[in-house]
Amino acid sequence: MATINEPPTPGLLDHCRAMAQRSRQAALELATVPAARKAACLRAAADRIRADAEAILAANARDLEAAPSFGLTEAATDRLKLDGDRIEGIAAGVEAVAGLPDPVGEVIETVTRPNGLEVRKVRVPLGVIFFIYESRPNVTADAAAVAIASGNAIILRGGKEAAHSSRQLVASMREAIAAEGLPVDSVQLVDVADREAVGAFLQCDDLIDLAIPRGGEALIRRVCSDAQMPVLKHFSGNCHVYVDKAADLAMAERVVVDAKCQRMGVCNAAESLLVHADVAAAVLPSIAKRLEAAGVEMVGDAATRELVPAAGMANDTDFATEFLGPKISIAVVGALDEAIDHINRFGSRHTDAIVTADQAASDRFAARVDTAVVLVNASTRFNDGGELGLGAEIGISTDKLHARGPCGPRELTTYKYVVIGSGQTKS
Amino acid sequence: MATINEPPTPGLLDHCRAMAQRSRQAALELATVPAARKAACLRAAADRIRADAEAILAANARDLEAAPSFGLTEAATDRLKLDGDRIEGIAAGVEAVAGLPDPVGEVIETVTRPNGLEVRKVRVPLGVIFFIYESRPNVTADAAAVAIASGNAIILRGGKEAAHSSRQLVASMREAIAAEGLPVDSVQLVDVADREAVGAFLQCDDLIDLAIPRGGEALIRRVCSDAQMPVLKHFSGNCHVYVDKAADLAMAERVVVDAKCQRMGVCNAAESLLVHADVAAAVLPSIAKRLEAAGVEMVGDAATRELVPAAGMANDTDFATEFLGPKISIAVVGALDEAIDHINRFGSRHTDAIVTADQAASDRFAARVDTAVVLVNASTRFNDGGELGLGAEIGISTDKLHARGPCGPRELTTYKYVVIGSGQTKS
Repeated sequence: MATINEPPTPGLLDHCRAMAQRSRQAALELATVPAARKAACLRAAADRIRADAEAILAANARDLEAAPSFGLTEAATDRLKLDGDRIEGIAAGVEAVAGLPDPVGEVIETVTRPNGLEVRKVRVPLGVIFFIYESRPNVTADAAAVAIASGNAIILRGGKEAAHSSRQLVASMREAIAAEGLPVDSVQLVDVADREAVGAFLQCDDLIDLAIPRGGEALIRRVCSDAQMPVLKHFSGNCHVYVDKAADLAMAERVVVDAKCQRMGVCNAAESLLVHADVAAAVLPSIAKRLEAAGVEMVGDAATRELVPAAGMANDTDFATEFLGPKISIAVVGALDEAIDHINRFGSRHTDAIVTADQAASDRFAARVDTAVVLVNASTRFNDGGELGLGAEIGISTDKLHARGPCGPRELTTYKYVVIGSGQTKS
Repeated sequence: MATINEPPTPGLLDHCRAMAQRSRQAALELATVPAARKAACLRAAADRIRADAEAILAANARDLEAAPSFGLTEAATDRLKLDGDRIEGIAAGVEAVAGLPDPVGEVIETVTRPNGLEVRKVRVPLGVIFFIYESRPNVTADAAAVAIASGNAIILRGGKEAAHSSRQLVASMREAIAAEGLPVDSVQLVDVADREAVGAFLQCDDLIDLAIPRGGEALIRRVCSDAQMPVLKHFSGNCHVYVDKAADLAMAERVVVDAKCQRMGVCNAAESLLVHADVAAAVLPSIAKRLEAAGVEMVGDAATRELVPAAGMANDTDFATEFLGPKISIAVVGALDEAIDHINRFGSRHTDAIVTADQAASDRFAARVDTAVVLVNASTRFNDGGELGLGAEIGISTDKLHARGPCGPRELTTYKYVVIGSGQTKS
């Protein structure tokens, strides 16, 4: 079997199809495993991760050693680095998933038809998930845990930067899965570095039910364009905060500063601030002072620059950009609907907030902004599976089909109709 | 504006984008229209269709006149033909949609988080739907009605065979929509015959939220391959009936004959029969006699042909084929799991039935057959929005993501999270 960093593998498509076939068989078995056994398996996996801490740290050391050759920044290298606390965090994350309710088997609805047919809508796993990500090692364990909890088999394709760490984490989890008597191929890690492997899996639409890309725009565009199966996109978060004319201005300042500055490199951080003209003079200068103090570069429209001389000129590209760092675009708007139109034009359907004391304004904003998560008088940073009460997440969907916002175990399920009759025929 | 049968339109992409933009604006308005106004609009549309019966019949006469030039069979021409009764059926279908519950605005869940955030999951329309279909004129009216009921704008691209009928039906419905004060572009019919128009719309992923192709395999494959937005497929129905060893054999015979013969050209008709070896000798010959009497050609495996000499030899292609006519494939299986494996291999995830008195067998079949609708002791013909209690449908999804089985108004919705705070921040 090929290992990381080998040259293009002969028979790559066959190799990937065989992996996907093993996943499909595992999914068929896993689909009917009772909740208690899946939870026990996840707790065993957490224990195994703790017990294998030394091996995981050794694998991580190899990744850290290779980090400069991948051109990783210091910040990226720090995110890659594991220690005892971070390994405990990974194990605790897997355990937390074990504590979530099992979505599988839920009878969503039952109706009895006039002809006596009993129609049940039953929640079932999706099947096989192909997860392509560029992230820290904990994402490997989280994604595997969410998949098992929802009865899905998962094929993991992590970033090359974390290859050794991910491989050891998956080995530990597979050992626990096997020891608990669940199908070990419920979790598989793509074991060929060849970039073509991704393309090979994306052709297996008869074996893989869903592709989830999580990473940069180039990765997501490639997956969308090549995938023959449905794709659930975790795309960019060009998140807005709109300060309405009826806002509590002190609250607005707190919410804007938190949304932008509490953590800048994440998808639910604010990237754009809209302020109603009636309150711009009263609130923009003090918000700008705090953003400036936090080292945030500001670009704005003409009205903003009159109130905030430190702000540069913003163009449409700025308003459409997810900065993922210390920069924000600012515009002054003349009306609520202008804010709504601006967000529907430039936003990315991820997370958008309004600060207002006017119920009619927040209702209109919530109804008309086309986004996964609307926040009223709260920071955009709350769009997160944990914060919304869903538990762990495999990503935050910016799609409108199937699932929107944070995707936990339930979002990795579908339903089937089970119709119980007593010999009914149509004729 | 270009009309049907003109040569390729210059500026086609701009023309289609402008149409999609009008749909998007209509969708934004329609999303917040209350249930009662949408229902009133649909009732007005039904009345308008009745009042315009003469114009619709005249338009239909032009389609019928052109039918031979499209090479339509007599059966296809009959399906295209409208008369007073059929127009009344179309109007009544639109009225029936008006009577369905409005899915929009439903609060699916509410949780209050420890920090006081109130998290509401609210059902909202998808937005703009592009519906490409090759069907009878009534599908035009049904699809438009289901879209309006669910607060979505729809762009209709019907088959050229029904072009005049569809155009008049859409004109009647738009007149009613305008008269009721709803956005008239909630329903638009693609007004250029150019095949490239479909491709142009499929590029507008910033304006169109979902493409639904309904028709032959070539159409669906083309839409899947070209669409930049998500696609909900109404693919083929290679539907199975499995007669278990614990089946009531008289019931099995009734169910199989109904599933195959009650109407042969539809997607939920049975295409394949599996019979447990223990009961094959007792039930297959009598089923075969009735199928033969109904003019159904049979192809089977060796065991089938021993019991049914009239059956030809079946190969894998036969088992994978949706005949949509008087032909059926038959196999004798040694065990329940063999039937399940056969269906998961050859089926199309549409509709599959088991006849058995053994609860453990039907539970296992229901859990392990990967299909949208499982029927236990009932005919496959019941997979239909009306029969399952969903009301009208725009199609039957064979996808697993988003919606499975019949798609009515609720299946054309998504959700958003609306999070109500009082100034919460993460820091």
